[in-house]
Amino acid sequence: MAFDLQGWMQPHLLQIEQALTEWVDPKAPAGLGEAMRYAVLDGGKRLRPLLVLATAEATGAHTLDAALRAACALELIHAYSLVHDDMPCMDNDVLRRGKPTVHVQFGQAQALLAGDALQALSFELLTPQDGSVPPAVQATCVGLLARASGYWGMAGGQAIDLASVGERLTEAQLRQMHRLKTGALLLCSVQMGVACGDAVSDSIRLAFERFGEVLGLAFQVVDDILDVTADSTTLGKTAGKDAAADKPTYVALMGLQAAQRYADQLTQEAMQALGDTGLPPERLAALQGLASMVVNRNR
Amino acid sequence: MAFDLQGWMQPHLLQIEQALTEWVDPKAPAGLGEAMRYAVLDGGKRLRPLLVLATAEATGAHTLDAALRAACALELIHAYSLVHDDMPCMDNDVLRRGKPTVHVQFGQAQALLAGDALQALSFELLTPQDGSVPPAVQATCVGLLARASGYWGMAGGQAIDLASVGERLTEAQLRQMHRLKTGALLLCSVQMGVACGDAVSDSIRLAFERFGEVLGLAFQVVDDILDVTADSTTLGKTAGKDAAADKPTYVALMGLQAAQRYADQLTQEAMQALGDTGLPPERLAALQGLASMVVNRNR
Repeated sequence: MAFDLQGWMQPHLLQIEQALTEWVDPKAPAGLGEAMRYAVLDGGKRLRPLLVLATAEATGAHTLDAALRAACALELIHAYSLVHDDMPCMDNDVLRRGKPTVHVQFGQAQALLAGDALQALSFELLTPQDGSVPPAVQATCVGLLARASGYWGMAGGQAIDLASVGERLTEAQLRQMHRLKTGALLLCSVQMGVACGDAVSDSIRLAFERFGEVLGLAFQVVDDILDVTADSTTLGKTAGKDAAADKPTYVALMGLQAAQRYADQLTQEAMQALGDTGLPPERLAALQGLASMVVNRNR
Repeated sequence: MAFDLQGWMQPHLLQIEQALTEWVDPKAPAGLGEAMRYAVLDGGKRLRPLLVLATAEATGAHTLDAALRAACALELIHAYSLVHDDMPCMDNDVLRRGKPTVHVQFGQAQALLAGDALQALSFELLTPQDGSVPPAVQATCVGLLARASGYWGMAGGQAIDLASVGERLTEAQLRQMHRLKTGALLLCSVQMGVACGDAVSDSIRLAFERFGEVLGLAFQVVDDILDVTADSTTLGKTAGKDAAADKPTYVALMGLQAAQRYADQLTQEAMQALGDTGLPPERLAALQGLASMVVNRNR
């Protein structure tokens, strides 16, 4: 019987939404909590947090307290990066998830602060002081997330992106940019899932990491494809933006059809990496489903 | 014999500068490392890192590896907050530590990213993966710093500051704003010093925390005084800015002379709190010296 991905996702999405709703305090000073909740709640695909939970479960973990914190921490980092990326000095975007962007709604200064505070809150979530997560797991998750979101991760990838508008990048350069800009956080999702799950061997961990890396690349190729094939309403953000800004993309580099074939090939590699963990197929079904969803999504 | 504060500070400042120079990678992608180093190296008073080291030493600690990481992590958070605070959508300041601000030098987009990456790097420094800092100390320090810099700390204080331009605040409201905006990080310096030092009793820890709180308040009162009494060249930033922006300050609230008396009174309270630790006076001399320096500084 085919795996029911929607049936798996529904309770996990509910858990994530409830946790985010509880953990982003609406009463934070001077409207800051309100702006942060606007940026985080209601509307994201929650791909990264779902990957954390699915990976932790794949290792055999039954208790997901630590993984739920890691999942939400990742989503806060993702959300802060969108808030800052949308600001006038960056992409100057006014539409996100079908709503006005944070700086349009709350002003630029509040958007800047909300992004900053979301990053801090992410590390706060990873370090509960109630004894619910062992200190070693806390330290590992913080280390993974700080590196994945910093200058040799997401922020570094954004800097390359900024510097490369109008430049002609080679495929290797484009891959390096995306490996940092979007790939690092997706890989980190899988790594944190492993860190929060039951102990696994090094070879299983490495197979999961290979899965996370390839999935990150596939995600970006599909993103580039959607930028030219989807409309803004479906995307919930401005379509055709990269092409208009003359940004280097996989579609610009290799053409639409080749990019689609490349995405399919990467999906196969991701499935292979999952198989290489040697874990029982039923434990891997949710991760397989999420990987398919990444490639077949329409927004 | 009087304590030689300069003699104490010199090797500690050297340690801090060397560590920051080593730990902020100049080769980070697309000029990001360069912008981050510009924001961090060469010019800060390093008050927060000195407080971390002095507190750890006061507990009797001889090994300062963990404290040096905590010290630099705090300085990176402080530096990122200045970069973002100076941006046009916030204070729109062009001069900092006698140099053009980061966005003037590198552009707004790079300044935004550099601030974001400095925050991430701060948590990276706290979580070394070489076994040099016990996981429990890592987790404690991350928890303290994330909370001190987040929406119920520095970022929340900045949001109140933004919202209160042109407003008439009571002394209680003003105190709350500063307790978050600048006080939280100064208190955190002392708390992280305790966490990285030798184990102390709860009563000693609480006395240190009282010291950190009062010092934070004194720091801000003096900041407000300097805004009206010092010139821009001495300050290394634009003087008279708060008054010009009609920002609430202690000077605006109580007048210059009363503010100066208040700063003196807070200094006495800070010294009292140090005495309450019951630690040998020679161990407290550096912290006493730093507290005096905070109040008697001219920039």
